[in-house]
Amino acid sequence: MKYAIVGTGAIGGYYGAMLARAGHDVSFLLHSDYDHVSRCGLHVSSCNGDFSLPHVKAFRSTADIGPVDVVLVGLKTTNNHLLKELLPPLLHDHTIILLIQNGIGPEPDLQAELPDAHIAAGLAFICSAKTAPGEISHQAYGHINIGNYSCPDKAVIDKVITDMRASGIKAAEVDYNEARWKKAVWNMPFNGMTVALDARTDELLNNPATRQLIREQMLEVAGAAQALGVKGVDESFVDKMIADTLVMPPYLPSMKLDYDHHRPMEIGYLYTRPIAEARKAGFEMPRLAMLESQLQFLQARRQSL
Amino acid sequence: MKYAIVGTGAIGGYYGAMLARAGHDVSFLLHSDYDHVSRCGLHVSSCNGDFSLPHVKAFRSTADIGPVDVVLVGLKTTNNHLLKELLPPLLHDHTIILLIQNGIGPEPDLQAELPDAHIAAGLAFICSAKTAPGEISHQAYGHINIGNYSCPDKAVIDKVITDMRASGIKAAEVDYNEARWKKAVWNMPFNGMTVALDARTDELLNNPATRQLIREQMLEVAGAAQALGVKGVDESFVDKMIADTLVMPPYLPSMKLDYDHHRPMEIGYLYTRPIAEARKAGFEMPRLAMLESQLQFLQARRQSL
Repeated sequence: MKYAIVGTGAIGGYYGAMLARAGHDVSFLLHSDYDHVSRCGLHVSSCNGDFSLPHVKAFRSTADIGPVDVVLVGLKTTNNHLLKELLPPLLHDHTIILLIQNGIGPEPDLQAELPDAHIAAGLAFICSAKTAPGEISHQAYGHINIGNYSCPDKAVIDKVITDMRASGIKAAEVDYNEARWKKAVWNMPFNGMTVALDARTDELLNNPATRQLIREQMLEVAGAAQALGVKGVDESFVDKMIADTLVMPPYLPSMKLDYDHHRPMEIGYLYTRPIAEARKAGFEMPRLAMLESQLQFLQARRQSL
Repeated sequence: MKYAIVGTGAIGGYYGAMLARAGHDVSFLLHSDYDHVSRCGLHVSSCNGDFSLPHVKAFRSTADIGPVDVVLVGLKTTNNHLLKELLPPLLHDHTIILLIQNGIGPEPDLQAELPDAHIAAGLAFICSAKTAPGEISHQAYGHINIGNYSCPDKAVIDKVITDMRASGIKAAEVDYNEARWKKAVWNMPFNGMTVALDARTDELLNNPATRQLIREQMLEVAGAAQALGVKGVDESFVDKMIADTLVMPPYLPSMKLDYDHHRPMEIGYLYTRPIAEARKAGFEMPRLAMLESQLQFLQARRQSL
């Protein structure tokens, strides 16, 4: 299968490099890093062992790549308005688009733009960062769960998972809605609270007041999922998320890194959209809506500086 | 009537100096500023005209002051554990204790410590600060509302109001519960939110997201007041508070000044207590409870630095 990576950063760069290292045909879309990567390739510093790909297929535009079988989208959702223009040259009748992104709702929004597209969600559990052009630092974890959103042929998803596993990536198929909402249970409290209080995950859990608040916020996400008929997101899952985070190393989620580096935060798909979806189902998320308002304030102030 | 000022700072210092200037018998309790004030007196820089009191009755202990008719308590509520020791030497059978303090609940707590005391609430609407020992800066407003909590003889309150008015202080009697909860409508959102987001009142209201959040938080206070049977705290009062604040100069509430100057914040009476009172009446305040948790986190972090 032919792969294209749209967004060769911490996420797309890592999974694309893993597939390319295993011999798969992977084309990388690049913008500011194009010159460096076309000359020097990609380097991955990984907790599982460093590796270099001195020669990768680097492109400036998706028209130059042409149709592929699988598109891995590693862009931040704040750039999703670009997908309508970027993706069509990559698509044939059976291309699967894997949105390896945060939040609730990027798939239906893309589907509305590209009604015939075959879309799946990729939920990455990975600590990685792009530290320089062509330089990916992979610190921990790395598995990816794939949830089918609108692919009529489940066999293509199976083939992607087979390719990933053969490339050293832990991959599994999961239920789309359950996976997106389960990830939101962790993402919604921690992404915003680390920004609002300028704190790491461990600091928030070591303080009894914020630990209880984080748990209440997680229960809001679980309540929203239940109101929307999503299975498997309950109080015991919330307790597992708290327990898992307590044994994680101190961590700064992606939104905190975005804020600290003066990049736009993914407020839309991480807060606005799930809060609106829940409200449509008659469920309010007052604490997370308050957090969203605080983030909107902080983002507007930072943009005005 | 004889007056004693417990807590000769921004609030107690201002009202005490106004009464003393008009010729009333006012004794000031001082700690770290005792030497300066006993030597040099008090100076008030006021938007209504500066004035000096070169000689004031300054004391180191309430035992040296002895019984008075009116005690004005201008301490921060974070020091209220001291009142049980400080107040008894000042009391005769008809002494009125006026707690010019923020929040919900200082009067019943003091009453539990001093069951026979005659207590009233003083709600000060004033922008003032102690800028140096014996130096009070009065920037704006200055009126005080007095709500009777446990004074059997309403005539004493009338006499305090008469004295204050004759001293140039706008003073009025109000319903105790209504006044405390009305003040909480403004205090609970703005004190904590200016700390949590490091922002002035005008910045919070100029951003549409936080303006709506402030309004929702005010409605939580109004809902709590209604659940507790307090009259006059409704949505139209909330809208009036928003409108009034929009025409105020940019402002930093007392909790923000406390936090910025590394003093303990009045979280207990401004958040913990009203949230608990509302909960006892079956009313939840999720946004203000979340704000309390954020403040607890920030205070604990600052103390640990």
